Amino acid sequence: MVYSLSRIAEALGAQVVGNADLTVRGASEPAIAGPDELALAMDPKYADGLAQGKARAAMLWGDAPWQDFGLEGAILVSRARYAMSGLTTLMDPGPEIAQGIHPTAVIAPTAEIGPDAAIGPFVVIGRAARIGPRARIAAHCVIAEEAVLGEDTLLHAGVKIGARVILGDRTICQPGASIGSDGFSFVTPETSAVEEVRKTVGARGDAVGQSWTRIHSLGSVEIGADVEIGANSCIDRGTIRNTTIGRGTKLDNLVHIGHNVQIGEDCLLCGQVGIAGSSRIGNRVVLAGQVGVNDNIVIGDDVIAGGATKIFTKTPAGRVLLGYPAMKMQSHVESYKAIRRLPRLAQQVAELQKAVSKLTRND
Amino acid sequence: MVYSLSRIAEALGAQVVGNADLTVRGASEPAIAGPDELALAMDPKYADGLAQGKARAAMLWGDAPWQDFGLEGAILVSRARYAMSGLTTLMDPGPEIAQGIHPTAVIAPTAEIGPDAAIGPFVVIGRAARIGPRARIAAHCVIAEEAVLGEDTLLHAGVKIGARVILGDRTICQPGASIGSDGFSFVTPETSAVEEVRKTVGARGDAVGQSWTRIHSLGSVEIGADVEIGANSCIDRGTIRNTTIGRGTKLDNLVHIGHNVQIGEDCLLCGQVGIAGSSRIGNRVVLAGQVGVNDNIVIGDDVIAGGATKIFTKTPAGRVLLGYPAMKMQSHVESYKAIRRLPRLAQQVAELQKAVSKLTRND
Amino acid sequence: MVYSLSRIAEALGAQVVGNADLTVRGASEPAIAGPDELALAMDPKYADGLAQGKARAAMLWGDAPWQDFGLEGAILVSRARYAMSGLTTLMDPGPEIAQGIHPTAVIAPTAEIGPDAAIGPFVVIGRAARIGPRARIAAHCVIAEEAVLGEDTLLHAGVKIGARVILGDRTICQPGASIGSDGFSFVTPETSAVEEVRKTVGARGDAVGQSWTRIHSLGSVEIGADVEIGANSCIDRGTIRNTTIGRGTKLDNLVHIGHNVQIGEDCLLCGQVGIAGSSRIGNRVVLAGQVGVNDNIVIGDDVIAGGATKIFTKTPAGRVLLGYPAMKMQSHVESYKAIRRLPRLAQQVAELQKAVSKLTRND
Repeated sequence: MVYSLSRIAEALGAQVVGNADLTVRGASEPAIAGPDELALAMDPKYADGLAQGKARAAMLWGDAPWQDFGLEGAILVSRARYAMSGLTTLMDPGPEIAQGIHPTAVIAPTAEIGPDAAIGPFVVIGRAARIGPRARIAAHCVIAEEAVLGEDTLLHAGVKIGARVILGDRTICQPGASIGSDGFSFVTPETSAVEEVRKTVGARGDAVGQSWTRIHSLGSVEIGADVEIGANSCIDRGTIRNTTIGRGTKLDNLVHIGHNVQIGEDCLLCGQVGIAGSSRIGNRVVLAGQVGVNDNIVIGDDVIAGGATKIFTKTPAGRVLLGYPAMKMQSHVESYKAIRRLPRLAQQVAELQKAVSKLTRND
Repeated sequence: MVYSLSRIAEALGAQVVGNADLTVRGASEPAIAGPDELALAMDPKYADGLAQGKARAAMLWGDAPWQDFGLEGAILVSRARYAMSGLTTLMDPGPEIAQGIHPTAVIAPTAEIGPDAAIGPFVVIGRAARIGPRARIAAHCVIAEEAVLGEDTLLHAGVKIGARVILGDRTICQPGASIGSDGFSFVTPETSAVEEVRKTVGARGDAVGQSWTRIHSLGSVEIGADVEIGANSCIDRGTIRNTTIGRGTKLDNLVHIGHNVQIGEDCLLCGQVGIAGSSRIGNRVVLAGQVGVNDNIVIGDDVIAGGATKIFTKTPAGRVLLGYPAMKMQSHVESYKAIRRLPRLAQQVAELQKAVSKLTRND
Repeated sequence: MVYSLSRIAEALGAQVVGNADLTVRGASEPAIAGPDELALAMDPKYADGLAQGKARAAMLWGDAPWQDFGLEGAILVSRARYAMSGLTTLMDPGPEIAQGIHPTAVIAPTAEIGPDAAIGPFVVIGRAARIGPRARIAAHCVIAEEAVLGEDTLLHAGVKIGARVILGDRTICQPGASIGSDGFSFVTPETSAVEEVRKTVGARGDAVGQSWTRIHSLGSVEIGADVEIGANSCIDRGTIRNTTIGRGTKLDNLVHIGHNVQIGEDCLLCGQVGIAGSSRIGNRVVLAGQVGVNDNIVIGDDVIAGGATKIFTKTPAGRVLLGYPAMKMQSHVESYKAIRRLPRLAQQVAELQKAVSKLTRND
């Protein structure tokens, strides 16, 4: 594919300067860009790289002196990362999934396949499943009975969609994601040691050994439009109602969502985040990598938690958190500075004890 | 499916009151229950919901005044979660895996398939594998050479069972679980920096750079009866002997079990737990989400660890743990209260230093 | 298979004593070894086990008095773990993947398959992919368009290789690994609350709610020779350039590698490690289980991080780390001893305050 500067600028709603008809075949970092590549230098700190590379065209910051860089043309943008979104959307060829239904696919006669869907090799689609128009389903996906996939959904290779799961329009699932596994919910005939510990915060009582009996998951999973689910992430079905994920929320790789969890809209859950059963996450919540959320708690709208924060208790809207256990980020930074000085503090206290003891004797 | 109240009560060993012949088609939360659904209100706090919903029948706590709620019939239970187990077991339709062997499955001629097994599309079964009676194996599972699956095992879609793995009767594997991957075991020709650090707790010595050589896994994995393995969880094979998981133990999603690990009976390992190589976990141990267990340590029977606890050392039986590094849960709660007050404590010490210095001068 | 002691000793470069022609069929722990098994007792502490077992041959430490143990022959080794590498390599039968291309595989006519490759059932290979000589690809793997697999690569069951991914010679992927999923990279039209928090370390500013727009991944993943990728691990493609993993690096199960990450040579990343986007990891870095690395930071050569260390900032070469947030391991050990004593320290300060207050009054 080739792209003219004018076509790229149009896709980005950005300004083109110089030769708008100049074409590129891809994008690259300034220092290693070839003559057919668009150099990406949206910050002055990357300007030096332009001289090292061979690019004739670049994407630059808003008021860049583009002619000083020996370029034939340039696209000037104000918000660099947002421009990256437009550019990469334009240039991404996407996965190759041939139109139509691959002859090896096994599709139940009662399944409905929307117009212009693309279904790859060895895909299995169960009884009464409904696949939306223009859905693209890569090789080795399994879609169980009565599942519903919206318009323009994209499942990469090896995604497993359980029975009665609903995926909204334009949802993307990365390879190996599993949506609709059974909830992890077990109970003992009599009160268990775990129940005692939760009640008393630490005392196990005299509960005796018992085996676990399974609570089955009668609910399923319902996912809104424009959601993305990362590679090998897992979303459990609900016990009675559905586990839900709101419109526009994005999950990274290896994320675990327990049964009955309800996640709002426009959230970001980064790599290896885990949400335990029955917790509720508000809208626009951002959880950095490896964050953990306890079961049965509520996280308010707009909460932001830094890397590996472990949230054990209800969190009000707008809170910014860090740490294990989670604290306000600013308190955490202060507390941990203090922890680093703690051995010295202990020594100071010991010295004070000596001095005071001497004073008391003298007194 | 329809279920009469008497049939449900019988499955639960519970008492039915009112019209025992009344039938329901499913279960629901009280406030949104329809006339054909059993409202679940096993605690007085859910009683208000009954008035909002349309249910004619409900499952209620032991001495509930069921007639006050305008119901035609009710099932009265004492231990709510245990009743949920019976109810959901009764009502779960389970995954649809057609009886018999799907024509696309590739099964080695030396494999033995037990009577009444159900084997889905694109399943691969290797040389001399043995599949127990009534086993259900969903689409896209791979069962390698000489693996043995017990009676009534259930593999959901895309499960991979490695060579010589043994699964006990009634074991359930959620989608994408991998049992029998190679252990993560590497060695350098000379002593490595990691070995130095372990010996000295932090000093790296003068070990030089070396490449890693692989220790292969000659052992396999042996899993007892009534075990459950979560979606995309991974269990490595042992080096010489088998990695083992005892009867009745349940693993949640994305759990990692290293090589040579031995886990006892009736344990619960929640989402994203990781157990490093060669550690031994007792019976009835409960590890909450994201708990980590160091390699080569022993965790006694009945240990309970709260969310994201990181266990570095041998833990005696019955201990209740929290934190990184793990402490007794009650000590952890106290210590972390103290950490929150630490900046203030440091200030108090600074003030004391001033006061004492003044007193000393005056003295 | 049977192995003579002389053949084993030759493979290990070790010394054989006694009957070098004695053969064994496998290896075992001393106490449970049968007469046809090689007992592994490379440390004097395992010597007692030899008397309990039935082994006629053993692998022993360098100057072991082998005749005292009633053995017919023995192999004497100096570095036990390194000897294990040689022994297990010799005895591992490896996964059974039949030579040639299984008739159910779907291979694009433009794909190139090297000589003596073994390709299992239901494998899918895309347009213009190139598979090196002697590659072994187990059942259910998917290799997308233009991917390149080196010589002697081994993909276990259900591995997904994305478009344009490059795997070096002898790379091993455990079951379910996903290489080449899209990066997790999203942007809002205006400055987001997350960007504010990063700038201010905790203050969210007045950013308003916005939906996330996708930055597509135009790069791919490039993996060097002799790399190992664990079961269900995930490696994201880069935004413009490739995500890279250097020669000889080993990843355990459920590891997450974000987009644009660059990892050096001969690293070990243990189970459930996560590396956020655009970070750079040096050579010979060892990250224990559940370690997390922030995005956009640099970890120097030879860094070692203990279990569940969370690294938020640039780390100089050779540092040994532990904790959340990461500290030097020795400081961490001291600080956490002090945390355990913190409630007592707080009490001592309270007592000092009383004593000083009394002294001040008296003064």
